[in-house]
Amino acid sequence: MTNVAIIGHGYWGPNLLRNYLEVPGVSVKWVCDLRPEALDKVRRRYPAQATTLSYDEVLEDPAVDAAVIATPISTHFELAKAALEAGKHVFVEKPMTSSRAGAEELVRLAHRTGLTLMVGHTFVFSPPVRKLGDLIHGGELGDIHFITSSRVNLGLHQKDVSVVWDLATHDLSILYYWLGEAASTVYVTGRGCIVPNIPDVAFVNLRFPSGVIANIDIAWLSPVKLRRTVIVGSQRMALYDDTESVEKVKVFDHGVDYKDPQTFGEFHLSYRTGDIVAPKLDNVEPLFAEATHFVECVTTGRRPITDGIAGLRVVASLEAAEKSLRNHGGVQTIELSDVPGV
Amino acid sequence: MTNVAIIGHGYWGPNLLRNYLEVPGVSVKWVCDLRPEALDKVRRRYPAQATTLSYDEVLEDPAVDAAVIATPISTHFELAKAALEAGKHVFVEKPMTSSRAGAEELVRLAHRTGLTLMVGHTFVFSPPVRKLGDLIHGGELGDIHFITSSRVNLGLHQKDVSVVWDLATHDLSILYYWLGEAASTVYVTGRGCIVPNIPDVAFVNLRFPSGVIANIDIAWLSPVKLRRTVIVGSQRMALYDDTESVEKVKVFDHGVDYKDPQTFGEFHLSYRTGDIVAPKLDNVEPLFAEATHFVECVTTGRRPITDGIAGLRVVASLEAAEKSLRNHGGVQTIELSDVPGV
Amino acid sequence: MTNVAIIGHGYWGPNLLRNYLEVPGVSVKWVCDLRPEALDKVRRRYPAQATTLSYDEVLEDPAVDAAVIATPISTHFELAKAALEAGKHVFVEKPMTSSRAGAEELVRLAHRTGLTLMVGHTFVFSPPVRKLGDLIHGGELGDIHFITSSRVNLGLHQKDVSVVWDLATHDLSILYYWLGEAASTVYVTGRGCIVPNIPDVAFVNLRFPSGVIANIDIAWLSPVKLRRTVIVGSQRMALYDDTESVEKVKVFDHGVDYKDPQTFGEFHLSYRTGDIVAPKLDNVEPLFAEATHFVECVTTGRRPITDGIAGLRVVASLEAAEKSLRNHGGVQTIELSDVPGV
Amino acid sequence: MTNVAIIGHGYWGPNLLRNYLEVPGVSVKWVCDLRPEALDKVRRRYPAQATTLSYDEVLEDPAVDAAVIATPISTHFELAKAALEAGKHVFVEKPMTSSRAGAEELVRLAHRTGLTLMVGHTFVFSPPVRKLGDLIHGGELGDIHFITSSRVNLGLHQKDVSVVWDLATHDLSILYYWLGEAASTVYVTGRGCIVPNIPDVAFVNLRFPSGVIANIDIAWLSPVKLRRTVIVGSQRMALYDDTESVEKVKVFDHGVDYKDPQTFGEFHLSYRTGDIVAPKLDNVEPLFAEATHFVECVTTGRRPITDGIAGLRVVASLEAAEKSLRNHGGVQTIELSDVPGV
Repeated sequence: MTNVAIIGHGYWGPNLLRNYLEVPGVSVKWVCDLRPEALDKVRRRYPAQATTLSYDEVLEDPAVDAAVIATPISTHFELAKAALEAGKHVFVEKPMTSSRAGAEELVRLAHRTGLTLMVGHTFVFSPPVRKLGDLIHGGELGDIHFITSSRVNLGLHQKDVSVVWDLATHDLSILYYWLGEAASTVYVTGRGCIVPNIPDVAFVNLRFPSGVIANIDIAWLSPVKLRRTVIVGSQRMALYDDTESVEKVKVFDHGVDYKDPQTFGEFHLSYRTGDIVAPKLDNVEPLFAEATHFVECVTTGRRPITDGIAGLRVVASLEAAEKSLRNHGGVQTIELSDVPGV
Repeated sequence: MTNVAIIGHGYWGPNLLRNYLEVPGVSVKWVCDLRPEALDKVRRRYPAQATTLSYDEVLEDPAVDAAVIATPISTHFELAKAALEAGKHVFVEKPMTSSRAGAEELVRLAHRTGLTLMVGHTFVFSPPVRKLGDLIHGGELGDIHFITSSRVNLGLHQKDVSVVWDLATHDLSILYYWLGEAASTVYVTGRGCIVPNIPDVAFVNLRFPSGVIANIDIAWLSPVKLRRTVIVGSQRMALYDDTESVEKVKVFDHGVDYKDPQTFGEFHLSYRTGDIVAPKLDNVEPLFAEATHFVECVTTGRRPITDGIAGLRVVASLEAAEKSLRNHGGVQTIELSDVPGV
Repeated sequence: MTNVAIIGHGYWGPNLLRNYLEVPGVSVKWVCDLRPEALDKVRRRYPAQATTLSYDEVLEDPAVDAAVIATPISTHFELAKAALEAGKHVFVEKPMTSSRAGAEELVRLAHRTGLTLMVGHTFVFSPPVRKLGDLIHGGELGDIHFITSSRVNLGLHQKDVSVVWDLATHDLSILYYWLGEAASTVYVTGRGCIVPNIPDVAFVNLRFPSGVIANIDIAWLSPVKLRRTVIVGSQRMALYDDTESVEKVKVFDHGVDYKDPQTFGEFHLSYRTGDIVAPKLDNVEPLFAEATHFVECVTTGRRPITDGIAGLRVVASLEAAEKSLRNHGGVQTIELSDVPGV
Repeated sequence: MTNVAIIGHGYWGPNLLRNYLEVPGVSVKWVCDLRPEALDKVRRRYPAQATTLSYDEVLEDPAVDAAVIATPISTHFELAKAALEAGKHVFVEKPMTSSRAGAEELVRLAHRTGLTLMVGHTFVFSPPVRKLGDLIHGGELGDIHFITSSRVNLGLHQKDVSVVWDLATHDLSILYYWLGEAASTVYVTGRGCIVPNIPDVAFVNLRFPSGVIANIDIAWLSPVKLRRTVIVGSQRMALYDDTESVEKVKVFDHGVDYKDPQTFGEFHLSYRTGDIVAPKLDNVEPLFAEATHFVECVTTGRRPITDGIAGLRVVASLEAAEKSLRNHGGVQTIELSDVPGV
């Protein structure tokens, strides 16, 4: 039995609680929040659930194996650090921290202690993203040439962070999972159209070490909602549209064949269009898959798919993107310092 | 009666010929091409049409009022220059020239001679682009915040130019017409996926003097064909989808209202979603509207909507974009020298 | 204050309870069900809610003004009759009864007692159906020529009734509300593809006294889910697609103008296509609007939009449709006997 | 070499001429039309083409192997009959004749003379219809349960025939090809909304001997153009949307499994949803495939896919449908008399 404590019962915490309560082999030892009314809500829904206002009480409880942290981003670092130092495995919501320095420290700490550190990049556990990951990793698409993504809709402006920290987090975690690498440079064009100094639209341009390039449009301003990603590979192409209710993933057996010029002749291209397949997707709730994966990693010592390194890569990229976005910062390099495991 | 000569009867020339033959008040005095077999084709279709292999014969014919040039891009500059020097009005296909220096020289020449110089940015004469132009210029969308555009499909790779010169030309001419200004900076991320050294995908990021930003995705590699432009204004938003057969333009009465924070309170936003209208569009062939406009400008001395300055702005932007694209050139400034009329 | 009792807390009852608890001026005096475990569920969710296993207790309670019945269809008639006879207003779920004879008796009883009798044809209270009703009743579409509707998806086969009783109920109630009349004849082609003797696909053809014709496709077997209704009027046409998340209703300013033949010439038609508008729809939960309407009718004596006559017309049509469907029954006339108020 | 004569050079004849000129092994010996100006047009386009005003001249020319008839429908019977009697093979446009009696006579005549009689049901030769035919005939969809089809758009009203003769012709020929059987009964609900006595909307209900049922919506009045057919089989389901430019055919690996009730228990259904595939379609012009098929049948004596029997079945169905449509004619039986080969 793995004993977890849910830290934070605000907007997202209830979803984590509900799922961890259902994962086999898990017991939710504590729900912890600073606000008594949040804990009242927990007990109304789950009368038998132990709750506490004191994070120390959680960390001092030797029965607790892992902390599941869903508090405001600015507190992630301190809370996760304290938990690791107390010998607890840590699951922390995305983005892992509000600065790259903090993320690096957590990664080092987890490495030193040998504890599991996992970040809640939930999309990586959603059936369409997993299906595409399997196809890409299995070589079905061939070498990836480029990826474009649009994640736009009308609302909801955040009060304290740019649209980059709010929305690009998702695309970065997804792309890094698919490609198995982080971007090396980022350039962002953006604008705060509605609220001064809070960019609500941004075009994020990425280059990867392998040569892949990517373009991500994100906005809180749009006539229509888009959740649309295109992956162009040398063997096949794919379309992932998360607003579709059924055909969320389509794989196109399309491509171009290049023939080198003979002697002094011109090169020759032939275009190929074949079947288009919308594969059946698993019917699993991403949050449940994520929780199950965390518990499995805690139990077996396996490295999480969205481990601390993955979380760090996203945070470092967000920090570089924000630097490019603000004051026309130009192209920013995303370099990770000497962090173990990178 | 306006006498025109069609110069070049290759891929595009036949379309121009067909349309100029139908414009009232126009006579096609000559069709000129270097290749006898091209002229044979003209006479088979139009037995009475005068043709010539000699461009000089055209320029020396005092009856010819205007040259309509549809030859390979690399020849645009020389042919247009010679025509202007011979006192002929000039219509030249897009892009106007293959270099900014040439474009500037043509603009200066047209200004000095007082002759009409017009560029064949045909999309500007298409009903959906015109309708959106009317809405924007009439203030219906309010201040424009940003524009995103996707112009991608599978094929057709060009042998000699990047996808930027091939496809971005269209979006640049459309955006500049709508916004009444040219971009001040451009940043391009691109890649030659299939043919070494010929970029076939590019993400073009633009900043405009007014603060508008734009993102243009162009590619010869894509699982699906997209011709999709989103315009977000302070009053309304619009979607232009040229792959739709009927609802090519949709106007969304959507927006966000911002209320300044009172005393120390937080700012407040309210989102508004209203009617969505697909306005009826004119039923006119863009090429015919373009040809009619050229003839009218020649006759009346009116400045063409897509005049030499418009053509120069596009060429200068393409040149800067190409510089950014090649060798990771970073952000490029688009500055026009001291050209009359800019 | 209007005191209601919710009768039946199975699949649908909880939705009614939740909504009636929120309607201003309403008190839910009782929740009644034969199954103790259903009432346990009520009290767990709403600890203060009075419940009872005895329908008699409800009817004998002089404080109860109205019974809201959401029990299996086969019990509607007996329960509604008893309530009316006990002097209670009645809201009963759709379809009103399982036979036309029963429906007629309820209508007569309501007429005689002067009590309100309303049927839960919820779609009639949904924003898209109401918007189209307003447009049709306001003459915006002109005279209605014909209506086609598709209501198909994969699942859920009912165990005891045909697809006609399950799905056509919705379309009949919507069409009768829009047109202000019931069909005069019905012809049905159908088939039980999966379960012997339970038709799971049916094509319902209707003729109306005004000349309107309609075709309704319903099925529990379909590759894609459709909820799509087309209304063709003499002035405008409309499309209602309930699977769309945003543009559920579109109004097309399209039509045909007919000119009578002059002397012996041929007639002449001109086709007109104009703007297409997706009007903004109210943002109200249909069930809440329905509950509010019932309470208002009870309080003011106003006749409900979906009154007993409306319920009777649907039941009579379903009975005739079923007769046509079974054993190739041919065209069936839908005649209502001499029922007061029809 | 097969020598054909094209009879009729009006609306459709030019398409046939263009295609027959390109079929290998075919010579177009004559183009025949009663109107000299129609033949002038032929010779302008094809200066070397022999033409004639006299049908007799064609029939008396011993070099002519086959007549390809594209004249007004009312003349099909006489012209085809004369050609067969003159010993010529016959290709005749759809519908084969304007009455079932005439169609039967042509079939008998072709049978007696041993000549090829083929009808121009072109859709049967289009890649999506052929692909679906291959899937159905190969058992991929299992037993067909039912088919629904919508063929509606705004315009073009015919002056002399109902929408049934104009549009249902296509669906009938397609369905009969797919199913390998003709309908046994038909019921039609329709209406002349614009022109008195010319029905412009009709709902056609069909029953087939195998138990298949079908519903066909056809109209010259519709807010949007639909060319959409759904086929539900016991193994798979398919969607054919001819307005799509790419994914015209989609095959859904969806279905329902029925388990018989054990002892006194209830039956049990399980719904299955699997991959959705849009198969690559051949890139062939239907008219060219049709012409090639006719020539091949003439040469080899093979029976055409759309032979006289196929043409007769469609005409007999149209005649029965029209009888049902006019004056509320009720359900009509489609019985073919004792025609050889049926």
